Amino acid sequence: MNPTYEKLLTRLKELHHLGSISGLVSWDQETYMPPKAGADRAEQLALLSSLIHQRLISDEMGELLETLRAPAESGELGAEAAVNVRELRRTYARKKKLPTELVEEISRTRSLAQQAWVKARQASDFPLFKPWLEKTVELQRQVAVLYGYKQDIYDALIEDYEPGMTVAELDPIFAEIRSRTVPLVAAIVRSGRRPDRAILSRRYPIEQQKAFGMEIARAMGFDFEAGRLDTSAHPFCSGLTVRDVRMTTRYRETDPLSSLYGIMHESGHGLYDQGFDPRHAGTPMAEAVSLGIHESQSRLWENLVGRSRAFWTFALPRFKAAFPGIAGDLDLDTITWAVNEVTPSLIRVEADEVTYNLHILLRFELERDLLNGRVQVSDLPGIWSDRMAAYLGLRPPDDARGVLQDIHWSFGLFGYFPTYTLGNLYGDQFFETARRDLPDMDDRVARGDFQPLREWLREKIHSQGMRYKAKELVERVTGKPPASDAFLNYMERKFGELYGV
Amino acid sequence: MNPTYEKLLTRLKELHHLGSISGLVSWDQETYMPPKAGADRAEQLALLSSLIHQRLISDEMGELLETLRAPAESGELGAEAAVNVRELRRTYARKKKLPTELVEEISRTRSLAQQAWVKARQASDFPLFKPWLEKTVELQRQVAVLYGYKQDIYDALIEDYEPGMTVAELDPIFAEIRSRTVPLVAAIVRSGRRPDRAILSRRYPIEQQKAFGMEIARAMGFDFEAGRLDTSAHPFCSGLTVRDVRMTTRYRETDPLSSLYGIMHESGHGLYDQGFDPRHAGTPMAEAVSLGIHESQSRLWENLVGRSRAFWTFALPRFKAAFPGIAGDLDLDTITWAVNEVTPSLIRVEADEVTYNLHILLRFELERDLLNGRVQVSDLPGIWSDRMAAYLGLRPPDDARGVLQDIHWSFGLFGYFPTYTLGNLYGDQFFETARRDLPDMDDRVARGDFQPLREWLREKIHSQGMRYKAKELVERVTGKPPASDAFLNYMERKFGELYGV
Repeated sequence: MNPTYEKLLTRLKELHHLGSISGLVSWDQETYMPPKAGADRAEQLALLSSLIHQRLISDEMGELLETLRAPAESGELGAEAAVNVRELRRTYARKKKLPTELVEEISRTRSLAQQAWVKARQASDFPLFKPWLEKTVELQRQVAVLYGYKQDIYDALIEDYEPGMTVAELDPIFAEIRSRTVPLVAAIVRSGRRPDRAILSRRYPIEQQKAFGMEIARAMGFDFEAGRLDTSAHPFCSGLTVRDVRMTTRYRETDPLSSLYGIMHESGHGLYDQGFDPRHAGTPMAEAVSLGIHESQSRLWENLVGRSRAFWTFALPRFKAAFPGIAGDLDLDTITWAVNEVTPSLIRVEADEVTYNLHILLRFELERDLLNGRVQVSDLPGIWSDRMAAYLGLRPPDDARGVLQDIHWSFGLFGYFPTYTLGNLYGDQFFETARRDLPDMDDRVARGDFQPLREWLREKIHSQGMRYKAKELVERVTGKPPASDAFLNYMERKFGELYGV
Repeated sequence: MNPTYEKLLTRLKELHHLGSISGLVSWDQETYMPPKAGADRAEQLALLSSLIHQRLISDEMGELLETLRAPAESGELGAEAAVNVRELRRTYARKKKLPTELVEEISRTRSLAQQAWVKARQASDFPLFKPWLEKTVELQRQVAVLYGYKQDIYDALIEDYEPGMTVAELDPIFAEIRSRTVPLVAAIVRSGRRPDRAILSRRYPIEQQKAFGMEIARAMGFDFEAGRLDTSAHPFCSGLTVRDVRMTTRYRETDPLSSLYGIMHESGHGLYDQGFDPRHAGTPMAEAVSLGIHESQSRLWENLVGRSRAFWTFALPRFKAAFPGIAGDLDLDTITWAVNEVTPSLIRVEADEVTYNLHILLRFELERDLLNGRVQVSDLPGIWSDRMAAYLGLRPPDDARGVLQDIHWSFGLFGYFPTYTLGNLYGDQFFETARRDLPDMDDRVARGDFQPLREWLREKIHSQGMRYKAKELVERVTGKPPASDAFLNYMERKFGELYGV
């Protein structure tokens, strides 16, 4: 092996270990950390971030990458090394543009903004958060200017989450989603049809919910010898290493579907993290392409598999067995209908498959316009209310259920939200292709055999790491570039049938 | 504040954070880590160790300490700063003596020796472990030579765990323990008396054992907002920070006392870790004096409080309430007698208050003689068997229950074992002094009011951090230097009465 490349791999392994450690420390913060440990924990995490940042932008790293540029691009080092060098050069070039003082300022502001957001949300008092959001937007604008961009300043931030994606591409996608989803939701509401959820509102003991969720995750192929399921206020999945993938969920005793779909969603993420090629562990060849591709995996399992009749053909008898004496009178029609209920609601994380993208649309528009100075922070509550009325026919009664509901902005995560909708689009394209490649897929799913689908995803997507960019990957796998059309057709077809609209 | 000292404090804080992170990563390894994550975890921990070692022996640290030496010693920086500079200079000087290659060699050997030990113990096959133990002893001998010593090579290693303690001081202590404990144990065995443990061998559900253990820990004053209790194969307590103290225990359904005393023991450690002065967090002024002093806190709560009649006067009604329908017929005489049973046994971690020190004596003698070359690794199984016969009248039927039972040597921890017995001696001296200072202590304990004792320990010991060396602390608090006499008197009195010997 090229000795310079070998040296790079050694440095990469250390960065990977530090990243895994930081991931574990964050996981603990959300799961088991005693309440009084919060302040120390923030400092521990800040120290790890700064160790990682320093090592990433070190002169040694710069020299290694410069030396490896030509041999990597010529193909002399092999295809995988070329990917690793390309991706590291991209990250190095971006992070190198940020002065240490700005990185520290952002870290300090994030801590304080986050605390202000918690208080503001509790009190439903936007003015408490406003100065911190203004400062956060200003800092993100500085970051965007330092990163640089061709067309739209917001593009510079999207790049951190969905490399290569731009406002110019997102605008028409979201416009189409808007023009076709708003009428679909309105028609559904007008139809007046509602599933019967009576059986699903009984008391389902939490220990049994957990056992059932793990049974389904195991059937999907999640390896509990290389991962865990715990409880946290906000569900997440953190792939510390390919052999240590930690997901969380939360439970409501009178809603067994909430934890089930939470677990299926996080297991979708988890299968991606467990599906990287371990030979490439710690390098971009064993990392996710983008947040959008990551989300495609979670949404595919949660919605396209988990809300299908085929899935419940397999799952219903198990569900009844998991909750003896509770759900014995549930039938396949009722459950399939109930898990596909569409109801406009104020809170994004509780939204159904159809209305979800309108919540994202709203956030995309606001972020784009904030970054471009077309909207001011002080305008947000009003615009939020008006757009919610226009898209979903609802106005939030307070800011806690409106502009203050998400944690993302307090963390300075601008450019992250669009990846949720991209995940839906990519996921649908992948799933339709898998269905064509695997003609008996629905029968297999109905028998609880998820292996063909999982292995298809592993081969086509998981094991590829960052070999391809998101758009290229979607086109290679599905034969078509990412688009909203197929996804909207699927939604109109599925929910048109269910609701007779 | 002196700017150089301020700089030192900043560096110390970073070292503290790295230590806390490493502690958390180790805690997770023993509690929640998925099995397949082991290999990655070893690399993560090795990286953290090396980051800590590098920072500790950095040139910058050396220069800061050299600059601060005179102002600290003159008292110009204040008493606390003097302690911090003194202790860091001591650690720096020692660690600086170890070449990086040796540190890495030790780390690699530890990993492999530990794996070999696990296999050897499972198979009860000493020869499997022998070459690794030989290498470990050889490396520890190198370390001792590099550290340097005045009289006995073993002193150089003891210094890591019990600074200032020497073989010359330990020899007479252990000789006295041996000469008075061996006959005491023999007399107890001859007496033929045994407590009735029938009620305590029923099935005690583990969830209720945990709840009861936490109730007792809370009564002792352990703050569960600043700490946790989890389950692991080997109980331990890890004070990550003063606000994040994690203890573990293990449960046996038919032995509720095993988990209870495990929890009281670890809570004793935990109260020490939670009792440091938070203003000094991250500096030696908020660290334990020595492992012996740490163990004095755990043994004091476990044995001197927890096995007393006063404690059970308070605890018995709660115990019955915690296990309704199980322990209703237990009375105060029976429980007090049962928790003080003395039985020679092969396994150190299961040994009672009396026989425990003979297990430590054996290990002390073997370590001392191994380091001095008076005993060879290949002699260990035979000597082990002969000494167990001489001290406790038992011969291990295999090496798993003999020389292979402890994990310590596989980790290269030579010099650690004596601190267990020192903890018993110190703990007894502290407890007798507390009893004199707090005349109503037993009455308070009998009412479940542990506050006076806890606050006494906090003021005299916990909040002092490393202000005094162990011997100095014992003498300041108790008016007498550490000795075995008082402890042996206590044992002969207490167990003489119980067993009529």
